[in-house]
Amino acid sequence: MFRTIEWLDDTSQVRLVNQTKLPLTLEHIVTNSHERIAKSIKIMEIRGAPAIGAAAGMGMALAAIESKARTMGDLLEYLENAANTLNTRPTAVNLTWATTRMLEVAKSVTGSIDDVIQRLIDEAKEIAEEDVRMCRSMGENALEFIKPGYTIQTICNAGSLATVHLGTVGAVVRIAHEKYNGDIKVYSAETRPRQQGARLTVFEFIEDDIDTTLITDGMIGTVFREGRVDCCVVGADRILRTGHIINKIGTYTMAITANYHNIPFYSVAPTSTIDMETNPKDVIIEERDPDEVRIINGEYVTVPDAKVYNPAFDMTPPELIDAIITDRGVVRNPTEEKMRKLFPK
Amino acid sequence: MFRTIEWLDDTSQVRLVNQTKLPLTLEHIVTNSHERIAKSIKIMEIRGAPAIGAAAGMGMALAAIESKARTMGDLLEYLENAANTLNTRPTAVNLTWATTRMLEVAKSVTGSIDDVIQRLIDEAKEIAEEDVRMCRSMGENALEFIKPGYTIQTICNAGSLATVHLGTVGAVVRIAHEKYNGDIKVYSAETRPRQQGARLTVFEFIEDDIDTTLITDGMIGTVFREGRVDCCVVGADRILRTGHIINKIGTYTMAITANYHNIPFYSVAPTSTIDMETNPKDVIIEERDPDEVRIINGEYVTVPDAKVYNPAFDMTPPELIDAIITDRGVVRNPTEEKMRKLFPK
Repeated sequence: MFRTIEWLDDTSQVRLVNQTKLPLTLEHIVTNSHERIAKSIKIMEIRGAPAIGAAAGMGMALAAIESKARTMGDLLEYLENAANTLNTRPTAVNLTWATTRMLEVAKSVTGSIDDVIQRLIDEAKEIAEEDVRMCRSMGENALEFIKPGYTIQTICNAGSLATVHLGTVGAVVRIAHEKYNGDIKVYSAETRPRQQGARLTVFEFIEDDIDTTLITDGMIGTVFREGRVDCCVVGADRILRTGHIINKIGTYTMAITANYHNIPFYSVAPTSTIDMETNPKDVIIEERDPDEVRIINGEYVTVPDAKVYNPAFDMTPPELIDAIITDRGVVRNPTEEKMRKLFPK
Repeated sequence: MFRTIEWLDDTSQVRLVNQTKLPLTLEHIVTNSHERIAKSIKIMEIRGAPAIGAAAGMGMALAAIESKARTMGDLLEYLENAANTLNTRPTAVNLTWATTRMLEVAKSVTGSIDDVIQRLIDEAKEIAEEDVRMCRSMGENALEFIKPGYTIQTICNAGSLATVHLGTVGAVVRIAHEKYNGDIKVYSAETRPRQQGARLTVFEFIEDDIDTTLITDGMIGTVFREGRVDCCVVGADRILRTGHIINKIGTYTMAITANYHNIPFYSVAPTSTIDMETNPKDVIIEERDPDEVRIINGEYVTVPDAKVYNPAFDMTPPELIDAIITDRGVVRNPTEEKMRKLFPK
């Protein structure tokens, strides 16, 4: 199964998927240089908050090996410089979170330089494994809703490529696929304007031998009416305490269309995605560059100065959601009261 | 206002929009040669059943002028050859219909050669005007549903470019725009996979100074929820006696989403589109080439051998349709009984 980033024990290298080459080429970058990792983060060869957190952790472990330091002082100095180098994207909190965690480990370990280096390697691998475990929990929690033979409708990409492995929706699909001996299929909506469904989701499920069919976003009505799918599983960029989910544009239209056909609609995301403060009416949806809609593959598909409305996300109300699936458990027919139970005092 | 094809009286030429150059360039072909018209039909510089019927009629009038015939026998021979030349697309019934109609006129007129030529020019212009009048009737019949200040949601292209002028949905928008002194706006769904909404509808409404906003197909839920549109007006490739409409893929999803938001949903088409024979369950929807979904502007947007489902049309049931608007009148909340009244015995 497909890993976005991993530590290679035998050569003490990091291997990561070069996402700028997808979907036409699956190309890996294999490196023992923390500067090469920093470059990958900067130019988005690797992207997605959990994935770049893991990359930064592994970059710190590579730096420790590179340093050839003979004293703890030299090692820490080298690591602090490496942390600065790795922090190439200022708004990515996972980067500082991971490099800080690695520096704290380096400072706290007693023993030889080699012991410290080994401890840093273990910590970097642990950061990655924590993400894998969290995704796996979501996938396992979803199993009660997914039966053998099901076909799952997805939108956008909430797969491996944003995480270390499995993904969120990706975990639901992969764990059901594993548990049911491959008897799971996927319909992936292409997800205009940026087509993450076509470019990423189709790619990564085909890599894992999951039977995947691509459709355009407007085809969902026909796909649902013809009984081609059994349920919808979508991610969430933010979940409100009311059970509203904010996710990629097109999700709300899909939820309405699923509801009309009595097809269950599930949203899967880690509890870290849940915002217990904001009211639905206060959510501001980002509007993005009109050229995302006007230009595809470098060419205009409409009048170049056509007026465009391009909201990046939409909001789906809880009455259209059958369950929210998190790493801590499942909330059926979400309400504020039920959402609060995910966070015991 | 924008005409797809017209006869230029002062120079006895035909002027038509070269649709292969749209949406980036509005280029006209102006010609006095029936062979040039035949080429335009063949290579789809002009397309759409009503438009190519008018083109064939005007091509016959050009042939009559070109012929320099001194006898009726010579003229008819020249016209029969021209009719063969103009019939470049074997399945386009409008071509043979128009050329046959022109030949019959030539045979029936008495008077000088010049009289016959003038009568053919008049007939060609009449074929075009009949289409314009039929579109105008649909637009006028729709006025009871469209108020000043309305914003109309469209999908695909049912505009001028498939007809001589106005279009079907295009007539609804243009006649309301004319009647309400420009106080009409449009949201055009891009209509993947072939993007006729982005490529054609946006182009032709902007040409007519109609305030038009392009969205992707998945954005309709947000557009409706935010109250950005007042009604949906879509075309129809076929209308069944039960009131089901078969139209471009995405129409059904739009109808469901409009229904959820209590936004009226209208379909506009000439009565020639109504099929009083076929049952909804017997309708076969054409599936088209997967590469329409996989390739945009010459480049893959997904894995090249990804499995694709690509139905070209979908079927919307009458319970989602507030009215069917035809050249002969309006059918509110369509039923078989009401549809039959369009065809008095």
